[in-house]
Amino acid sequence: MSETINERSLRIHEVLKGKIGTEVKHPVKTREDLSTLYTPGVAAPCLAIRDNPEDVYKYTGKGNTVAIVTDGGAILGLGNIGSLAGLPVMEGKALLFKEFGGVNAVPICLATQNMEEIIQAVKMIAPTFGGINLEDIPAPRCVEIERRLQDALNIPVFHDDQHGAAIAVTAALINATKVVQKEINELTVVVNGIGAAGSAITKMLYELGVAKIYAFDKCGILHKKKDYGHIYNPVWEEISQMTNLDCEEMSLAEALTKADVFVGASIANILTPEMVKSMKENPIVFALANPNPEITYDEGKNAGAAVMATGRSDCKNQINNLLVFPGLFKGALRCGATMITKSMKIAAANAIASMITDEERNAEYIIPDPFDPRVADVVADAVEAEAIRQEVTREYCCTVHE
Amino acid sequence: MSETINERSLRIHEVLKGKIGTEVKHPVKTREDLSTLYTPGVAAPCLAIRDNPEDVYKYTGKGNTVAIVTDGGAILGLGNIGSLAGLPVMEGKALLFKEFGGVNAVPICLATQNMEEIIQAVKMIAPTFGGINLEDIPAPRCVEIERRLQDALNIPVFHDDQHGAAIAVTAALINATKVVQKEINELTVVVNGIGAAGSAITKMLYELGVAKIYAFDKCGILHKKKDYGHIYNPVWEEISQMTNLDCEEMSLAEALTKADVFVGASIANILTPEMVKSMKENPIVFALANPNPEITYDEGKNAGAAVMATGRSDCKNQINNLLVFPGLFKGALRCGATMITKSMKIAAANAIASMITDEERNAEYIIPDPFDPRVADVVADAVEAEAIRQEVTREYCCTVHE
Repeated sequence: MSETINERSLRIHEVLKGKIGTEVKHPVKTREDLSTLYTPGVAAPCLAIRDNPEDVYKYTGKGNTVAIVTDGGAILGLGNIGSLAGLPVMEGKALLFKEFGGVNAVPICLATQNMEEIIQAVKMIAPTFGGINLEDIPAPRCVEIERRLQDALNIPVFHDDQHGAAIAVTAALINATKVVQKEINELTVVVNGIGAAGSAITKMLYELGVAKIYAFDKCGILHKKKDYGHIYNPVWEEISQMTNLDCEEMSLAEALTKADVFVGASIANILTPEMVKSMKENPIVFALANPNPEITYDEGKNAGAAVMATGRSDCKNQINNLLVFPGLFKGALRCGATMITKSMKIAAANAIASMITDEERNAEYIIPDPFDPRVADVVADAVEAEAIRQEVTREYCCTVHE
Repeated sequence: MSETINERSLRIHEVLKGKIGTEVKHPVKTREDLSTLYTPGVAAPCLAIRDNPEDVYKYTGKGNTVAIVTDGGAILGLGNIGSLAGLPVMEGKALLFKEFGGVNAVPICLATQNMEEIIQAVKMIAPTFGGINLEDIPAPRCVEIERRLQDALNIPVFHDDQHGAAIAVTAALINATKVVQKEINELTVVVNGIGAAGSAITKMLYELGVAKIYAFDKCGILHKKKDYGHIYNPVWEEISQMTNLDCEEMSLAEALTKADVFVGASIANILTPEMVKSMKENPIVFALANPNPEITYDEGKNAGAAVMATGRSDCKNQINNLLVFPGLFKGALRCGATMITKSMKIAAANAIASMITDEERNAEYIIPDPFDPRVADVVADAVEAEAIRQEVTREYCCTVHE
C-alpha cells in the first residue's frame, strides 16, 4: 500500500519535530566571537539603539522578521481547533515566508480568542518584529484586530486570510476578464461566503471598480436595509455599503443568473452545474473553498465556465496566497514600510497579473504558478515602489515606537 | 589603528542585520513538499493535536523552542535602556542557546515594564513555546513574574539573571571551598548587591547550608528588624529571613572581617585590597560585576585572596551563565520537565562542579571553561535525571494547557 498524504505528513512532521528552527548566522566558536556577538561587545549596538531607536533596523534582525500570529479560531478549513493545534500551520507558514520570500518568521500561537487580549498581546510583543502577519483568525474579529493593530503600530500589519486571498483573486480576475474580453467596470460579481477572505475580496473588487457585487453569507444576500437580528455582524454591515445597492432580495441561484463572475470562499459543492449554466455569457468561476471547492474544476468547465479557477494545486489556475505574502512582506520590509495600504495591495495584484503576457494568457493560464521563481520579487518590487510613492516608509513616517 | 571591540561588534552586527534567522528544516521545492508540509497534508498533525494536545510535542518544534523574554529593564550592566535596545542581547542569547545547547530560541522584547502586563503577555504567547527564559528583567519584579508564570504554565520558566548566576556561583563555590579545605556549612559569606543575581545566589547558598550570610544592598546590611521605609523591597524582605539572623548593624567593611567568602553582584571597584586583607584566612573572592568587577582579578590575588573569580573571559575562573542555561534547558526540554525545581538547579551546580576532578582542581581552576564542549551535556543529563527523579515531567504531570 502506498502512503497517503496524511500518513506522509504525519511521518515527516514527526521526523522533523518542528519544520523550522533557529538559524545561526555567525558561529560562536571562540572567545572573540563571544565578546563580539555577546558581552561585552553587544553593548555597543544596544547603546546605539537606545540613543537612536531607528538603529534597531541597522543592527538586528527586526527589519526582516515577521510574527505569524493566530488565535486558532479558523485554522485552514478545520475551523476553531485552537491555537496549539494550529502550530503546524504556523510553522508551515514560517517555512514558506523564508523559502519563498527570504523573510524570517516566528509562529506565535496565542492562548486567547478574546479580541482585546489578542490586540494587547500583539502590541506587547511588537518591538521584536518588523511586521505582523495575522493568520487564521476568523471574521468578524479579524477585521477590527487588524485595523486597530495597524493604527497602533508603525510596522506593517497584514491579515493574510483576508488580503492574501483578495490580492490573488484580483490578479486572477484581471486576467480572466481579459480572456473573456469583458471590462472590470462592467462586471457583475457574486461573492459567496463573507468571512475573512470573502469580505476582503468584496472590498478589493469594489475598490477596483467592479460594476455590481452581490454578497451572500449565512444570512442570505446582504444589503443595507436587511435586519440581521441577533446574528448581526459588523462585517456584513460594512459589506452592505458596497454591494447590492438596490437592496434586492434574492437567492444565490437567482443572483447568479445576472452574474458574469462567481467567487466562492465558502463550502464545498454549493455551486451546481445548473447555476453555472444560468450565468451570463462566458462565465468566470473561482471556486476557492479548501480543500474541496464549491464546484470542481472539471464540473465547472463542463457546465460552461469560460474560465475556472480553484485553490487546488492539482488543477490549472490555482489561486493561492502563496503568490502574495512572501513577496508582499519582502517588499514592505525592504523599504521600511510602516503599513500595508490599499494601493500597495492593488499594486501586488497588478504585478501578479502582469506576469502573464498577452501571448501567454488563456483560459487555463490566468495566474502564475506559485512555484514560478519570479513571483516573490515581482510582488516585492511592486509593493516597495508603491510604498515609496505613497511615502509610507519609515524614511517619511519615522521613529520606532511600538 | 586596530579595531576596538565595540567597533568590531558594531561592524559585525551591521553586516549580519540579525544574528539569528529562521532555519528551514525541510525545503519546499515541489508540490509534494508543499502538500506534505502545508495544505492539505498539514491538517493531519493539526487534527492529531486537537484530539490529543500532548501530540504538539510529537509533530512540532514547541518542545525544543524557548522564548527569551525581556522588558528591557536591566539590559546587561547597562540598566533600563528599554526592550528595543535589548534586542541585540536577546538575539545573542538565542544564538548561544542554539550553538551551545541545540535549543531553538526566539527573542521577545516586550513593549511594557508593568508586571501585570508582562505576566499576561507571556501567558498569551506560551502555547508556542516549550520553555520561557526570562532575561534582564530587574529585581524585585523579576521574582514575582517568574513565580507567577511558573505557577500558571506547565512549561519550565527560568529567569537566567537569577538562577543562571546562582548555579554558576554555587558550582564555583563548591570547588573553591575544597581548594581552601573548608566546609560549606562552616562558611560565612558576604553577598553584596541583592538584585536579581545576588538574591538568587543568597537563596541558593542558604539552601546549600552555608552557615552564615550577610547581604548588602543600597540600604546597607539587610536584616529582618530593619525598617526599609519608602524604599521597601519585597526581595530584601525575603532575603532578610535567611541572612544576618542576629540582626547585626554593620558596614560592608566590618562584615568582611568575619567572612570566608565575598560574592559581589554589584558595581565596579567597590571591594578594596584592604577589605580582602581583612577577611578570614584563605579568603574566596567572587567579584562578578560586569564588565568591570568589584575588584580586579590581579588586585584580589595580590591582596591575598586564596581563590579569585570574576565574570571576565580574560581571567581564570570565569563564572558565566553560559555554563548553565543551554544545558539546563536542553535537559529540561528533553525529558518534558514542566518546571525548573530547586533541586534541578542544585543538580546543575553539582554537575558543573564535578566536571573538575580532585587532581585538576586548584585555585585557578574551580569552574570549567564555557567553551568546554562537555558542559551542556553534563548539565543536561543532571537536570534531566533530577526532573525524572522528582517526577516533574509531563509523563507524570501531564496535559498541555497554557
